[in-house]
Amino acid sequence: MADSFRIKPSSLTRLRRAAARGSFARSDIYAILDATPLCHVGHQVDDQSVVTPTCHWRVDDRVYWHGSRASRTMQQAVGRKVCLTVTHLDGLVLARSGFHHSANYRSVMVFGTPRAVADDDAKIAALEYFIEGLFPQRWRTLRAPSRKELNATTVLSLPIEEASAKVRNGPPVDLEADLELPIWAGVIPLHMQRGEVQACPHNQADLPVPEHVSSYRFAPPPQINVED
Amino acid sequence: MADSFRIKPSSLTRLRRAAARGSFARSDIYAILDATPLCHVGHQVDDQSVVTPTCHWRVDDRVYWHGSRASRTMQQAVGRKVCLTVTHLDGLVLARSGFHHSANYRSVMVFGTPRAVADDDAKIAALEYFIEGLFPQRWRTLRAPSRKELNATTVLSLPIEEASAKVRNGPPVDLEADLELPIWAGVIPLHMQRGEVQACPHNQADLPVPEHVSSYRFAPPPQINVED
Repeated sequence: MADSFRIKPSSLTRLRRAAARGSFARSDIYAILDATPLCHVGHQVDDQSVVTPTCHWRVDDRVYWHGSRASRTMQQAVGRKVCLTVTHLDGLVLARSGFHHSANYRSVMVFGTPRAVADDDAKIAALEYFIEGLFPQRWRTLRAPSRKELNATTVLSLPIEEASAKVRNGPPVDLEADLELPIWAGVIPLHMQRGEVQACPHNQADLPVPEHVSSYRFAPPPQINVED
Repeated sequence: MADSFRIKPSSLTRLRRAAARGSFARSDIYAILDATPLCHVGHQVDDQSVVTPTCHWRVDDRVYWHGSRASRTMQQAVGRKVCLTVTHLDGLVLARSGFHHSANYRSVMVFGTPRAVADDDAKIAALEYFIEGLFPQRWRTLRAPSRKELNATTVLSLPIEEASAKVRNGPPVDLEADLELPIWAGVIPLHMQRGEVQACPHNQADLPVPEHVSSYRFAPPPQINVED
């Protein structure tokens, strides 16, 4: 995707400080959203913010998440302005003064008002893309969703219209005068790592580990297309 | 710390669903807060939630974070009700139906109204505990904070009074009838991992990597005590 495909900054997303760390390129925003299923969604109840961790996925220019229809959080989010934030903590930055210590990270904030995916087919399609984005070829192997399960699930969809990315990387930035000090400075990189799979004790005997499990890496899911 | 040291549930923190996954034990809440520096703080501006990633640290029964005094986000958070959420994504849970796929995680939400640490000594002490919590013995090796740096830094402090933890772990929970299906189910564990240190190119020659860097693990920092 061309970097020229950019989102227009708004009063919410325009960076006032450290603007060099910001990006409105959809390619950057999408890459950061796609590189983890974990996001934090903030919505407000009266004068109180509530920030809930959940799993998201992206289809084209929309980001989705889902939850129980009975969930207070899901019910409260519909039709309200939310902020969906995704952050990768990429490293700890050790400088020669406390002040210049920092963190390397990639983050995206998406602002907007989510709506519930109403149509059952669209809901199933969205859920399929969620599973397929994480585990290609898995959906077709699963027991299909029941009417009861579909009814119990709310899928929310948010357009990626008002959004921005913010990134810090590289070594510490110290005061020129501090570079002479005999203090070790540098970066401890951090990344998510998968462990050994833990098969369900109820698995049938001799069931092979599927390719989508053995090859799973904590990395961007494939680009996918769907209409909602 | 005794598990009997518990936080009283409130209308915000009481779990309506999946209550078995919740905990109000301070030991659980503290362990989750302490196991990563990354949190997401939600505050609101008019009718819009804003969720900002930042680094936090805990001292006794308060959680702290800091930022530039010039930061809009920091200015807006003071005196407003915020929600500070910490989440560890511990695994992806693959079930025999899409519906029962899940994630293993540990999360904490802290609600309250932060205040800025006003006193300079308390501010320095708080920042020292932040650095020391991550990198024991480092603070004394650093160039001391200047008046200008202190003035440019806002440290926020939030009491851990209205808070709760939520945890999911273990294998998938499928419908009894689905256990007969020849579908591989299980968990892909995930964890944060450190990489090889990247020394700053400006480091003086032959500067050894300090113990607090070589031994750094993505794990709970030590328990520390400070008055604020």
